[in-house]
Amino acid sequence: MIKIDLNCDMGESYGHFVIGQDEAIMPFVSSVNIACGFHGGDPRIIHDTVRLAQKHKVAIGAHPSYPDLAGFGRREMPLGAQEVYDIVLYQIGAVAAFTKAGDSKLHHVKPHGALYNKAAVDDEIANAIVNAIFYFDPSLILYGPPLSQLYYAAKSTGLSYCSEAFADRTYTEQGQLTPRQNTDALITNENIAIEQVLQIIHHKTVKSINGTVIPLAAETICIHGDGKYALQIVSRLRSALNEKGISVEAPEVTDESKK
Amino acid sequence: MIKIDLNCDMGESYGHFVIGQDEAIMPFVSSVNIACGFHGGDPRIIHDTVRLAQKHKVAIGAHPSYPDLAGFGRREMPLGAQEVYDIVLYQIGAVAAFTKAGDSKLHHVKPHGALYNKAAVDDEIANAIVNAIFYFDPSLILYGPPLSQLYYAAKSTGLSYCSEAFADRTYTEQGQLTPRQNTDALITNENIAIEQVLQIIHHKTVKSINGTVIPLAAETICIHGDGKYALQIVSRLRSALNEKGISVEAPEVTDESKK
Amino acid sequence: MIKIDLNCDMGESYGHFVIGQDEAIMPFVSSVNIACGFHGGDPRIIHDTVRLAQKHKVAIGAHPSYPDLAGFGRREMPLGAQEVYDIVLYQIGAVAAFTKAGDSKLHHVKPHGALYNKAAVDDEIANAIVNAIFYFDPSLILYGPPLSQLYYAAKSTGLSYCSEAFADRTYTEQGQLTPRQNTDALITNENIAIEQVLQIIHHKTVKSINGTVIPLAAETICIHGDGKYALQIVSRLRSALNEKGISVEAPEVTDESKK
Amino acid sequence: MIKIDLNCDMGESYGHFVIGQDEAIMPFVSSVNIACGFHGGDPRIIHDTVRLAQKHKVAIGAHPSYPDLAGFGRREMPLGAQEVYDIVLYQIGAVAAFTKAGDSKLHHVKPHGALYNKAAVDDEIANAIVNAIFYFDPSLILYGPPLSQLYYAAKSTGLSYCSEAFADRTYTEQGQLTPRQNTDALITNENIAIEQVLQIIHHKTVKSINGTVIPLAAETICIHGDGKYALQIVSRLRSALNEKGISVEAPEVTDESKK
Repeated sequence: MIKIDLNCDMGESYGHFVIGQDEAIMPFVSSVNIACGFHGGDPRIIHDTVRLAQKHKVAIGAHPSYPDLAGFGRREMPLGAQEVYDIVLYQIGAVAAFTKAGDSKLHHVKPHGALYNKAAVDDEIANAIVNAIFYFDPSLILYGPPLSQLYYAAKSTGLSYCSEAFADRTYTEQGQLTPRQNTDALITNENIAIEQVLQIIHHKTVKSINGTVIPLAAETICIHGDGKYALQIVSRLRSALNEKGISVEAPEVTDESKK
Repeated sequence: MIKIDLNCDMGESYGHFVIGQDEAIMPFVSSVNIACGFHGGDPRIIHDTVRLAQKHKVAIGAHPSYPDLAGFGRREMPLGAQEVYDIVLYQIGAVAAFTKAGDSKLHHVKPHGALYNKAAVDDEIANAIVNAIFYFDPSLILYGPPLSQLYYAAKSTGLSYCSEAFADRTYTEQGQLTPRQNTDALITNENIAIEQVLQIIHHKTVKSINGTVIPLAAETICIHGDGKYALQIVSRLRSALNEKGISVEAPEVTDESKK
Repeated sequence: MIKIDLNCDMGESYGHFVIGQDEAIMPFVSSVNIACGFHGGDPRIIHDTVRLAQKHKVAIGAHPSYPDLAGFGRREMPLGAQEVYDIVLYQIGAVAAFTKAGDSKLHHVKPHGALYNKAAVDDEIANAIVNAIFYFDPSLILYGPPLSQLYYAAKSTGLSYCSEAFADRTYTEQGQLTPRQNTDALITNENIAIEQVLQIIHHKTVKSINGTVIPLAAETICIHGDGKYALQIVSRLRSALNEKGISVEAPEVTDESKK
Repeated sequence: MIKIDLNCDMGESYGHFVIGQDEAIMPFVSSVNIACGFHGGDPRIIHDTVRLAQKHKVAIGAHPSYPDLAGFGRREMPLGAQEVYDIVLYQIGAVAAFTKAGDSKLHHVKPHGALYNKAAVDDEIANAIVNAIFYFDPSLILYGPPLSQLYYAAKSTGLSYCSEAFADRTYTEQGQLTPRQNTDALITNENIAIEQVLQIIHHKTVKSINGTVIPLAAETICIHGDGKYALQIVSRLRSALNEKGISVEAPEVTDESKK
């Protein structure tokens, strides 16, 4: 049976500031990446989101970011590898405390925003992130872009890796995400999103914004929870996958990662 | 052989803002309470302080606070019990990640400033803190004031408790710390500090600011690291304890706490 | 001709975190209170909100708060009078810079949330706020609750005062706002809101949650911009006022205030 | 009579975190740049520093920064020109409120840290800063590096400019400040600092770290207040200037700037 993980960034609200529709979307995904308080999220929201995920038996990941609430973690910051190690370890520990106290366990880590993009292309930053995760708990899975510096750093360290593609973002001919400032960066039509996901699952390819078909292998599909069409896309996508007999489930912690 | 723990708040610097003399004082204490980023401290400083403590074989505790960098955690905030549980769990997890990644283990938790004072007299807040610690790791020791609400909450939950007295603070006739705004709140003469500590150890009493002798039993003595005379007091105190044949060591994790 | 001011809190978004529907609501009000960055708002959002208000010829006020982004300024903080003076002066200056650079002028100041509630009943805090405004610019108008400590402090200092009532909040028998945690604190039916406003304008009374009619004189009516029904209430209210021949306009800066 | 301005960054403490020796250094300088709360400083500290400067009849400037308390404003941030305009205007307004309420007037603006360095070489950022100052108050003086993008932006806008050199920093052969990470970046010997200042004043040159003599014209000399030797350098420097008959005074607001 074909399997795929559907993941969504959650817990990105902050105090009275609400982002996303976590309760509505949670039933449709198999794993979530919980903001750790650095770009969004606060202790109360982390707790609520962990509980919500546990209720829906959804795998819980930490979603560490640059320390940048004002910029929602989308601005690159000139932190060195040691500082990145430190901020990632801090954030993983903070979120893992809520799973630990709630008799469950952290399942994965996915860097957020500008840190994700930086780690995809910078091997020192990628290694810093991989080390923070590995020294904290070597059985954690790292979610990140396919064949990126994060991927290579995880592989060389022996950390499990789950390659991610996006349901609601377009790709350039080079296989990169179309930058957010471009008008065609986002997919808002659920049929196109579903088609893109099925193509990734069945053919390990995606149609780029130029129309060319490029290779794209992924074990997890990210749905953004804060878009206007997020709920519509994810609920329709989940139905489509069910109809096609594709099992939506989080990646298993493998033996390799327990070494 | 008589034993006593000497503890000091550390890692309270923030970015370029330096507080305390952690490197100078570390050799003289047996346990430290590391700021968790809410009143002081940041991921880099937590990491450095954990490493420094490991180097000196000093027991490592988390020092959670109200979220109040601007007020250094010394302002009471109207957080309910659930919010206090959440902020304490978050902070313990964040600091524990650095001990875990560094092949050591968190030893204790001591609330900071206004949260310490609040928890001493408010049983709901005390229970929230005790629960956060207990659900995270029931073998952790809670440092706090003797015979306070924190003490009773720990006892009723089965969490190990270490009663704390102060070397460099005076006491009122009621056995409370003289408030910081009073001119006679601080002890800056190391001989008086040493005398106070020896009286606590040998007689389980302390001379209050009114001159009366009141009961005060404690297993740990706190030295503040940011005072002008901190280094002088702690180094002289350590020598005095050595001369008297009193062993300076962190409290052991007892069997009871492992239940 | 009968006149009334309609005011709304605006510019309370922060970075990527959006609160309120400022663009939709701006055409219906005569004055706005712009968040200053302490409970919401940031420099970009202040700038955008000032421009939006200027475009609609709406009077611009500063909306200073306790420094509490995490609690949206709704938590009381133990700041003394001097600190309140300092934080209010800082925030007024910051927002006034955008009116000054935009060739307009700050019109009024309205404290936010917990600071508004505290100043209503605490004469030292009320005086601190009044002094900060008066020393910055004695022609500014202070918006606040009728017959409160803020009112008396403004009167004794010679600062213009504009008494405020709420369209979408209920009142207790004592003439206080029903606390937000109560289920009947908010008015979500626009007809009831309109009725309440007309009663305040025409009869200087309001029906309390107990059904009794109590005195309530106000020169400005606050509409909250972040409620689900905010746009509906404010647009219908504006129409109702127009139909009744009531002029919606901001209070004029009087000669008295220029003394 | 030869004139020179001595300026110092002040008010960079934050809450309980103390940086610098403002009270000790204030008597020796003719102008100060007061942190605005974005890299250091808070409303209480701004108020205290403004009062201290007024007491010593020292010219008061605002010292705006990137919003980066954690990095002390020394990390470059990817803010566009509009955002820089907004953060600078906000910060100038906030500090100017304290001079206005204290019956004095803001005299100048000097960007801080990474923003200063960025504006020196980036004409869009330089223009954003110049515009924020000019639209707020065209009589303000901008302090910045000689012949930099900031200088050219000020000149083309008609804003008064005061070129700055450093007493306690070394220069590269290209006339740039030696980066802080280099071991020879700082001058800690007061005689060398005095010699460098006198050479700048009398010959409009400086000896670079390579030993070559390069042109350097400046109307203000910056002394850092947080170095170990700061007080010693500034007090000796002030004496040396007095002995040489050089008048230490802030630059006058010129007619040109009032146009």
